[in-house]
Amino acid sequence: MAASKQRLRGGIDLGGTKVQAIVVGDRFGVKGDARLPTPTSGGPREVTEAMAEAMRGAAAAAGVESSALAGVGVGSPGAVDTDAGTVAEAGNLPNWQEPFPLRQRLEEALGTRVALGNDVALALEAEFRLGAGKPYSSMLGVFWGTGVGGGLVLDSKPWRGRGQAGEIGHMVVKQDGARCTCGRRGCVEAYAGRGAMERRARRLLERGRKTDLFRIMEDRGRTRLTSSVWAKALEKRDPMATDLIERAIGALGAGIASALNLVDVEAVVVGGGLGIRLGEPYRERIEKAVMPHLFATESPPPILLAQLGDLGGAIGAAGLIHP
Amino acid sequence: MAASKQRLRGGIDLGGTKVQAIVVGDRFGVKGDARLPTPTSGGPREVTEAMAEAMRGAAAAAGVESSALAGVGVGSPGAVDTDAGTVAEAGNLPNWQEPFPLRQRLEEALGTRVALGNDVALALEAEFRLGAGKPYSSMLGVFWGTGVGGGLVLDSKPWRGRGQAGEIGHMVVKQDGARCTCGRRGCVEAYAGRGAMERRARRLLERGRKTDLFRIMEDRGRTRLTSSVWAKALEKRDPMATDLIERAIGALGAGIASALNLVDVEAVVVGGGLGIRLGEPYRERIEKAVMPHLFATESPPPILLAQLGDLGGAIGAAGLIHP
Repeated sequence: MAASKQRLRGGIDLGGTKVQAIVVGDRFGVKGDARLPTPTSGGPREVTEAMAEAMRGAAAAAGVESSALAGVGVGSPGAVDTDAGTVAEAGNLPNWQEPFPLRQRLEEALGTRVALGNDVALALEAEFRLGAGKPYSSMLGVFWGTGVGGGLVLDSKPWRGRGQAGEIGHMVVKQDGARCTCGRRGCVEAYAGRGAMERRARRLLERGRKTDLFRIMEDRGRTRLTSSVWAKALEKRDPMATDLIERAIGALGAGIASALNLVDVEAVVVGGGLGIRLGEPYRERIEKAVMPHLFATESPPPILLAQLGDLGGAIGAAGLIHP
Repeated sequence: MAASKQRLRGGIDLGGTKVQAIVVGDRFGVKGDARLPTPTSGGPREVTEAMAEAMRGAAAAAGVESSALAGVGVGSPGAVDTDAGTVAEAGNLPNWQEPFPLRQRLEEALGTRVALGNDVALALEAEFRLGAGKPYSSMLGVFWGTGVGGGLVLDSKPWRGRGQAGEIGHMVVKQDGARCTCGRRGCVEAYAGRGAMERRARRLLERGRKTDLFRIMEDRGRTRLTSSVWAKALEKRDPMATDLIERAIGALGAGIASALNLVDVEAVVVGGGLGIRLGEPYRERIEKAVMPHLFATESPPPILLAQLGDLGGAIGAAGLIHP
């Protein structure tokens, strides 16, 4: 049994809102998983602690100690240096600008080797190899969460360009438009990123607009407008939530169509916390928002939901470990 | 001598404003060229006649009859069916919606075989293999003319996606923005296409705005605002021309940056009638307009002028003929 357990692999998807940990066996079968909210204060140390705790939880659910895993892969936002094992400039994580030795600290905490990768690239590859992208040789992945991440697969290989390809969240859909987290104007993320949406909701509230968003947030013991807070508010037809989501979908539609007009891939896969949580009805709305801007209207590519759901990022991260 | 002359090839670039014909020898050395304005009335027959006439002119300049050429390649806008030898839906050409047997009619008129291809794809390949793109393995081509065409080279190969990739002119830079020739809203071409710019200039004139654009056009015996009309008006600091070009450059900048944020290629090559005619000072302005929207600001890719200039499309077309 020890030999078999040794083949289990861990994966952690470090998001702006939650830390998702997973243990997978052969062929990426899920043996256990656990999630924790991403700390909103403190810094890299606190985030690393939450990651280790989530990973230990997933290992426990799989009936092993984390030290018994063949290794743990981590999908991280920000600037990931896979050689140095550091992460820097993770704008959606608390006080995480300087390079932090995430690999070493996690290896100490978990008692097994750790490998780092880019969160979006790993989620994209997982969806392409194991999820909704499987039937295609080219696809655009759109990860709708705290930010809006993206990635391209062309000719059955991830296309990274000079290293920074796939930034659909920073395609411009409105010149001189809303200010984005990145400092620029009119990016898709400035309208559709959950971070940007929350900031706008707070501003509108201050200006006296009514909304149940923050009451729902507090009822759930949250300090942020998580995907499930948005989902609940939409279900209750909260007007501000509805408006902000419509605005987000408009920007996503224009951005996805622009991307398709440029690269004309076979399929679009929509994932990310918000994409997954809102699910099918909102996938359909995104599709409708793409159409008016699409050049190749006779044969629109399918716009699909990520099949691996919430776990795609963590599954992709586990793929960094080759037992 | 006959054997050597037989190796000469012809190329025709069919643009919305002009028909450029060329005769090239080995290694694409230019042996003769001629150009005619594209007919603005009539239909495919009249356009085909102008193409044949331009080609005969280029052949004469090279000291041969068109029938002595190994063949003539044609770069055409619209929906090109290379197997059937037809062109349809050429929106920037007069009354050219239905499929027209361009290959056969030109073969009859020129007495040699003819091959058709997509104008933008051919110009892109010429710039990549023989022009400004030579040092790179990936590039974005932007052809700024009557419309705004584009194309991608990735991994040293043209990337066509499902057949319609490269439509940078129809990337959305302003949701709910200006109406485009394609019927959609807020496309790059709605601001930067010379066709759209002319329509806007005429509307502004009707509303009483002053401009020398149309006087310059008439002085030159033109019926359209050609690239050289725009160049002259800019040189004379005509305020309307200056405003419209600034608006065009803003849209081009946002569109090019969006494209780069998505595909992160090594270089951008700007060509097309207007791009070539306005040249270096405007290349620089486009570069400046890209920067505020560019995600990878530490290492912006070079934005270069097409090196083959006005002749790139025709040279690329000649490449369709393998003597």
